Amino acid sequence: MDSISQQRIQVTFDYPVLFTDGLFQPDNPTLRQILARTTDVDGPGQVLFIIDSGVHDAHPGLAAAIDGYTAAHAAAVQLAARPLVITGGEASKNDPAVLHQVHQAIHDARLCRHSYVAAIGGGAVLDVVGYAAATAHRGIRLIRIPTTVLAQDDSAVGVKNGVNAFGKKNFLGTFAPPFAVINDVGFLATLSDRDWRSGISEAIKVAIVRDPAFFAAIEADAAKLVARDAAAMERLIRRSAALHLAHISSGGDPFELGSSRPLDFGHWAAHKLEQSTDYRLRHGEAVAVGMALDSAYAHVQGFLPERDLRRVLDLLVAVGFELLPPELAQTLSEPAPGSSVLDGLEEFREHLGGTLTIMLIRGLGEPFDVHEIDRNAMMRSIEVLARAQDAARAASAARRAS
Amino acid sequence: MDSISQQRIQVTFDYPVLFTDGLFQPDNPTLRQILARTTDVDGPGQVLFIIDSGVHDAHPGLAAAIDGYTAAHAAAVQLAARPLVITGGEASKNDPAVLHQVHQAIHDARLCRHSYVAAIGGGAVLDVVGYAAATAHRGIRLIRIPTTVLAQDDSAVGVKNGVNAFGKKNFLGTFAPPFAVINDVGFLATLSDRDWRSGISEAIKVAIVRDPAFFAAIEADAAKLVARDAAAMERLIRRSAALHLAHISSGGDPFELGSSRPLDFGHWAAHKLEQSTDYRLRHGEAVAVGMALDSAYAHVQGFLPERDLRRVLDLLVAVGFELLPPELAQTLSEPAPGSSVLDGLEEFREHLGGTLTIMLIRGLGEPFDVHEIDRNAMMRSIEVLARAQDAARAASAARRAS
Repeated sequence: MDSISQQRIQVTFDYPVLFTDGLFQPDNPTLRQILARTTDVDGPGQVLFIIDSGVHDAHPGLAAAIDGYTAAHAAAVQLAARPLVITGGEASKNDPAVLHQVHQAIHDARLCRHSYVAAIGGGAVLDVVGYAAATAHRGIRLIRIPTTVLAQDDSAVGVKNGVNAFGKKNFLGTFAPPFAVINDVGFLATLSDRDWRSGISEAIKVAIVRDPAFFAAIEADAAKLVARDAAAMERLIRRSAALHLAHISSGGDPFELGSSRPLDFGHWAAHKLEQSTDYRLRHGEAVAVGMALDSAYAHVQGFLPERDLRRVLDLLVAVGFELLPPELAQTLSEPAPGSSVLDGLEEFREHLGGTLTIMLIRGLGEPFDVHEIDRNAMMRSIEVLARAQDAARAASAARRAS
Repeated sequence: MDSISQQRIQVTFDYPVLFTDGLFQPDNPTLRQILARTTDVDGPGQVLFIIDSGVHDAHPGLAAAIDGYTAAHAAAVQLAARPLVITGGEASKNDPAVLHQVHQAIHDARLCRHSYVAAIGGGAVLDVVGYAAATAHRGIRLIRIPTTVLAQDDSAVGVKNGVNAFGKKNFLGTFAPPFAVINDVGFLATLSDRDWRSGISEAIKVAIVRDPAFFAAIEADAAKLVARDAAAMERLIRRSAALHLAHISSGGDPFELGSSRPLDFGHWAAHKLEQSTDYRLRHGEAVAVGMALDSAYAHVQGFLPERDLRRVLDLLVAVGFELLPPELAQTLSEPAPGSSVLDGLEEFREHLGGTLTIMLIRGLGEPFDVHEIDRNAMMRSIEVLARAQDAARAASAARRAS
C-alpha cells in the first residue's frame, strides 16, 4: 500500500543592497555595520576577500586599503587569510581551476558557515566566487562587492551564481541569495569605456520591459552617460537594481522552480552570440544586440509599432552599442541561413527548462511571451538591424563632417 | 551617503515522501503519479536513472524492470538516456570523477530544469547524485529512491546533499529539497546484516532526542529487528522518517542559515571515527558509537542518570552495535590521550559554523546543548564504554554457554 507524507519547507532570505562610495576608507561604516547584523558568532567576523585580477590591477592600493580598514575595525572584522586575487572576466568561469582555487582558499582559511567570503569584482568573478561559497560547507555567507556597471545594476543584486561547463554557459550553479550586496560607485571610475557602456544594456532591458518612464529617463541621460557622468550613472544603477530586486521578490518564484522566468528579454540570442564569438562580445554588448534583434522581430511580426522599435534602436545606438556584430551579419549567408544563431533557441530552452518561451514586446512596458519563433521572420529581423546600423553610421559620419 | 534596499525572498518547497513495495512492477502507480504532479511540460517526464552499483549487483533484474515500467507508462515517463550505474558507497563521495560522471550524463542527455534525475541507491550515492542534480542548470528535479535503512529512515527524506573534498566529509554540498522521495521496502531484503543494522542507529538517535515512546517501541522490537523482521523494520523507518521530516519543517530554519542545528546527537565523534577508520566504520555504526560516547559523557558529567545511560547502551548492544571500536579504544593510550578523536570537535564546529555546540541529554527526550567539552571527562567516558562493552561480551558468552 502506498502512503504519503507531504513535506512543506519555507525558507526566508533577507539581504541588504547598499550603496556607498569609498567602502574601504577607514571611516566608512558600511562593512562594519553589515557584519554587526548577526549575533551568532562571538568576536569579529572572519572574512576572506577574493579580488578580481582586473580590479586588483586597476586599484593598486586596494589590498592596503582593506588592511587599513580591518585594522581600524578589528573588533568587527578580521581577515581570515590574505586576500586572494583570481583571474577576472569570463575566463574565471570557463576554467575549473579557478573554482578549485576558491574552494581551496576557503578550506585553507578554515572558514565556517558563519564566516564570510567577500567577492570584489565583475559579474564573472562574483559568479564563480558565489558558486564556490554557496557549495563550501553547503553555503558560506557571501558579501558581493560588484565593481562593474553590469554587476551593480543587475547580476550582483540577484540570487544566482554559476560557472560554465561542457561548453554551456552557467551549466553549473545554484540559486543562493547573498548575505549582502555593496555597490561602491568608486569602482566605476576606472572602468574602460567599453565596460562602462556594456552594463547599461541591462538597465535598458528592465526599462523596456517594466518601466517606460525609466526608459525615457535613460534617453534624456544618454549623452551624459556617454560622457561618463557619474551622477547619471548612479541614477541608472539605482533604478535598475531596484527594478531587478522587485522582479525577484515579487514574482512568487525567485528560484524559478516552476515556470517563472527571469527578466530575459533579448537573452536567447545574447547567450549564443557570447559563445559563438568566444566571448569577444561582452554580455552587455550581446544583450544589446539580442534586444535589438527581438524588438525588430516583434516589429516584423506585426506586434511592435515602428515608432517604438525606433526608440529602442536609437537609444542603443545613442549610448554606443553596435546593433549588428559581424558574427550575426554573417549568419545571413550561411548554407542554412541563421542556423548558427537560431540553434541558440534550443539551448536557451534547455537551460531554462520546459517549453520554449521567448519574451517579446508590443510596446515599452508591454512584454508578452511567444513559444515559437519563425526562422524566416528572424532572418528579416537581422536585415532590419543591418539597415539600422548603416543608417546610424551614415548619421554619425554626417555629424562628424558638419 | 549610504542607502539601503532590504531584499526579502521567500521560497516554498513541497515534496512528497512515499512508501511503496515493488516500485517498478508494471501496475505500481507511484512513479507515474509523481510525474503527473506538474503540468509545466507537455508530454512524458524525461527521467535519467542513476543506480548505485551495489544495488545494481544485488538486483540483476532492476534495469529490465525499469525498462518494463517505462514501456508500460510511456505517456507519463520516458528514459532520457540509458540508466547510468555509478560506484556505490562512500567512495562515490570521495572520487571527484563520480560527480563529473553524473554531470556528464546530465549534459549528454540534454536534461532541462523540468526533467528528472532519479537516484536509486544508498545514502552516499543519493548525496553525490543529489549534489550533481542540484548544481546542473541550477537544479534539476531530483527523485530519491533510497535503498538502505539509513537512507530511508533519515538522510534521503531531508534537504541536504554533498561530496567529500579536501579530506573533509561533505565539504561541498547544498541544501536542496528533492522533488519526491520514494521508499521501496523491497530494496531492504537484499541488504547485508551490517547495512540492515547500521541504519537503525539514526532511528534510535531521533527516538532518544525526540520521542521516548518510540525508544520504548524499538526496545520492544529489538529482537525482531535482529531477526530481520520486515514489518518491524517498516514501523521503525516510517516513524523515524516522520520525526526527521518534522524536525526539518518545524524548526523554522531548514537551511540552517542561523544557529539552527541538525539532529546531530552523537555526530561529532561519528564524523571523526568514520574518517579516522578510513570509512571501515559505516556512518550508522559510527553514530551508534558517538551516541554511546556522548551518553556516557552526559552521565560522567552528572547530567544523565545511570538508569537512562543503561537503556541507551543496552539497546545499542541489543540490536548488535559495537560500543567501542578498536580505533576509539586506542586513543586512551595516545601521547595526548584522546587527541585523535577530540580534534573532531573543532572540525565539527567548523563544519556547522559558529560556536561549538554539542547536544547532550538529561534523559530520553530531554536534549540540551553544551559549548565546551571537558577532555578528561571524555576520556573517562571512553572507559565507561570499555567496561560496558566487556560486560556485554561476558553476558553474550554466558548466554551462548547456558
